[in-house]
Amino acid sequence: MKKNFLENTIKRLSKLPGLGPRSARRIIFHLLKNKDEILTPLIQDLLEVREKIITCKICGNLDFEDTCSICIDEDRNNKLICVVENIPDLWALERSGIYNGKYHILGGVLSAIDGVNPRELNILSLEERVKASDDVEIIMAISATLDGQTTAHYLSKLLQKHGNKITRLAHGVPIGGELDYLDDGTISQALKGRTLFE
Amino acid sequence: MKKNFLENTIKRLSKLPGLGPRSARRIIFHLLKNKDEILTPLIQDLLEVREKIITCKICGNLDFEDTCSICIDEDRNNKLICVVENIPDLWALERSGIYNGKYHILGGVLSAIDGVNPRELNILSLEERVKASDDVEIIMAISATLDGQTTAHYLSKLLQKHGNKITRLAHGVPIGGELDYLDDGTISQALKGRTLFE
Repeated sequence: MKKNFLENTIKRLSKLPGLGPRSARRIIFHLLKNKDEILTPLIQDLLEVREKIITCKICGNLDFEDTCSICIDEDRNNKLICVVENIPDLWALERSGIYNGKYHILGGVLSAIDGVNPRELNILSLEERVKASDDVEIIMAISATLDGQTTAHYLSKLLQKHGNKITRLAHGVPIGGELDYLDDGTISQALKGRTLFE
Repeated sequence: MKKNFLENTIKRLSKLPGLGPRSARRIIFHLLKNKDEILTPLIQDLLEVREKIITCKICGNLDFEDTCSICIDEDRNNKLICVVENIPDLWALERSGIYNGKYHILGGVLSAIDGVNPRELNILSLEERVKASDDVEIIMAISATLDGQTTAHYLSKLLQKHGNKITRLAHGVPIGGELDYLDDGTISQALKGRTLFE
């Protein structure tokens, strides 16, 4: 069997999250069919992203500056720090358009199975940040998974001693969600957290 | 709502086949987390692909030369021309390792709905090729869809007048396929095409 001459590129693409050999082949073929309109601009974008994007030294976000546009923005409430697992979560919160505070990116969650311990996450920098600021509310916007909740619990124990208010996102029925399709845990959380009908 | 600073790159990625905004964001994030190990080699691969890959002037395949490695290979049977819709189909046949003839890439199928007419496919070059060669068998390896079969029918009418043998791939039960899950069309084709048990 003859080796495909694009084998290496396809292999590299197929290892990206969500892709496999078949989708990688489709993408490569699509790129080759549209060299000028798609492949060239994509390469330019990736080059620019590689050269210009750096990690924010305060919160761990990615941006063009070493202090990201969120940390530097004085219109944002710096009495709120929202702790998220990673940058896509920050993007999700930003898309909602409702949050106007700052962030702190953990870089993952604690996991006994995957061997992630506190030293591997940006926890020390979070603690320093909390210590340095008075009267700040820390919002745990961490996944409602076992590892996520373990992490949130660990962080809240750690940060509580600095006398800050620590909150977490509400659990409940997602908008558009049908009760019939929800798991028992969500339904019981939604019941416990019920509020007055306005 | 603040515009994401990677918006353009994500938008471009999300338009690739099989991807959407969410998977594009995951990929960009993955690339940024692994700049040296993944992003840089990927950019280099794409640059190389863009510079070096060209279309074969005989069959329409993509390769480093303007006569592709399949067309130039004298060990391959040039009395067989396998007509495929596009290059991933050629790759699929090559992966099977069982075909040792040449190819011709149509670049799509005729479609009344999508407005694809014969002039937009590589049909003229196929006819020239068939006219120029004696005693060649043309294998229609075109999808068993309505448009695919219309195209195969059109081509066979067109090429038959040059006195060549025209064949098509067998229809039937795919290997590993359970009858219970197959559509009626496949089952009836498999019945019609039944062969002696060896």
